[in-house]
Amino acid sequence: MMLKYYQMNLLLLFSDDFIAPGRVLLSDQRVQHLLLVKKIQLGTQLIVGLVNGRVGQGTVVALQEQQLELLVQLDEKPVEALAVHLILALPRPKMLRRILQTISAMGVKQLSLIHSSKVEKSYWQTPWLAEDKIQQQLIAGLQQAKDTLLPEVTCYQRFKPFVEDVAPALAAQSRAVIAHPGRGEHCAAQLAPHVTLAVGPEGGFSDYEVDKFTQAGFSCCHLGERILRVENVIPVLLTRLMSITQ
Amino acid sequence: MMLKYYQMNLLLLFSDDFIAPGRVLLSDQRVQHLLLVKKIQLGTQLIVGLVNGRVGQGTVVALQEQQLELLVQLDEKPVEALAVHLILALPRPKMLRRILQTISAMGVKQLSLIHSSKVEKSYWQTPWLAEDKIQQQLIAGLQQAKDTLLPEVTCYQRFKPFVEDVAPALAAQSRAVIAHPGRGEHCAAQLAPHVTLAVGPEGGFSDYEVDKFTQAGFSCCHLGERILRVENVIPVLLTRLMSITQ
Repeated sequence: MMLKYYQMNLLLLFSDDFIAPGRVLLSDQRVQHLLLVKKIQLGTQLIVGLVNGRVGQGTVVALQEQQLELLVQLDEKPVEALAVHLILALPRPKMLRRILQTISAMGVKQLSLIHSSKVEKSYWQTPWLAEDKIQQQLIAGLQQAKDTLLPEVTCYQRFKPFVEDVAPALAAQSRAVIAHPGRGEHCAAQLAPHVTLAVGPEGGFSDYEVDKFTQAGFSCCHLGERILRVENVIPVLLTRLMSITQ
Repeated sequence: MMLKYYQMNLLLLFSDDFIAPGRVLLSDQRVQHLLLVKKIQLGTQLIVGLVNGRVGQGTVVALQEQQLELLVQLDEKPVEALAVHLILALPRPKMLRRILQTISAMGVKQLSLIHSSKVEKSYWQTPWLAEDKIQQQLIAGLQQAKDTLLPEVTCYQRFKPFVEDVAPALAAQSRAVIAHPGRGEHCAAQLAPHVTLAVGPEGGFSDYEVDKFTQAGFSCCHLGERILRVENVIPVLLTRLMSITQ
């Protein structure tokens, strides 16, 4: 990740960062970013948040080249989450990174990455699927969007066990839709408060896969005549399906 | 552009491709894509479209390794365009390419790339702003989305002449909004049939720039508490501002 292009609109803190209640000591990459990009000085105030916790203000009280001390007060709730469980055919590695940031920034808290016949098997071997690498992208998205609640990401390397054993329970608890060009209803705006949304790979789900999803209780929706790339379909669908911001 | 990941849902044709009415001969990169990715054979039918013209069907009637002949019939109107003029602070080169594809795929037909204080001056020197490079990305977006109408892209390397001399006329002809976090009204869905939409660089427009836009007749809108990257803001805003698909 190029430091320069990384937008940190909130500094995400972890419980390990605290040396005392309300007192934070940082000595990792974040310090470089805050110095070089945010150009912080003694006394600078920053928006901060505790991972999976509250947000608030931090004030720089000590500053060295590699080390930074902050006094923090965490008294506000984080932004509202999207009530959507996103099921996504595993994108190719380069796109995966961007999409993890996107879904995290937009407020998705449940992501299932699944196999599909048009997903190359080699994609499952990418180092970007390692837990710490996924985390890194999700954190980038949270810091971009001023959120603190880490999304949960689950991988299903086999399509059939997912669609037969997992998908029906998701569909039973929510309005479950599968986005598929040219099939089903036009995707309505603000469909429901709780949504499970399945998005296929570039090239789409196969007919067999769409049938399996509909058997699991999903209904088809499409976005009209234009076929968009997965990286654009996701923000479009999330915007359409629910009011992403209050 | 990696051939493999390039989605050609419509083959875009140019008047130069025609050797007779309804008869097309291709001998460039498109042939490779159609052979390798689309795996066309003699008799394969393809969705085709004439640039800035109609769409229809093509049938492969002759095929060699480097050369392809098609019989085409163009009898349908292309998908509807978005009635939006997008004004965008010039993104960094890598993102510019993706964004050109995105706006083209989503149906934007008027794009003004402008300077802003947070745009690095060096971005204006990128080879990706050459007319043929821009065209290449726009064509990729059209072929992705099955559209034929090439967007018009205009560059304004100086902010002030643009906002003082060009922006007021755009605002007079449409509902003109500037997307700016934390200022103005929440951005309403389906605001108006004709929209001029200004989107800032990563980090946003400066206060001075926002003031200049409002003086030119633009009103501020924001997307709520989450701050999204430009590449996500664009699909979100286009979806919110208008029904992107009929």
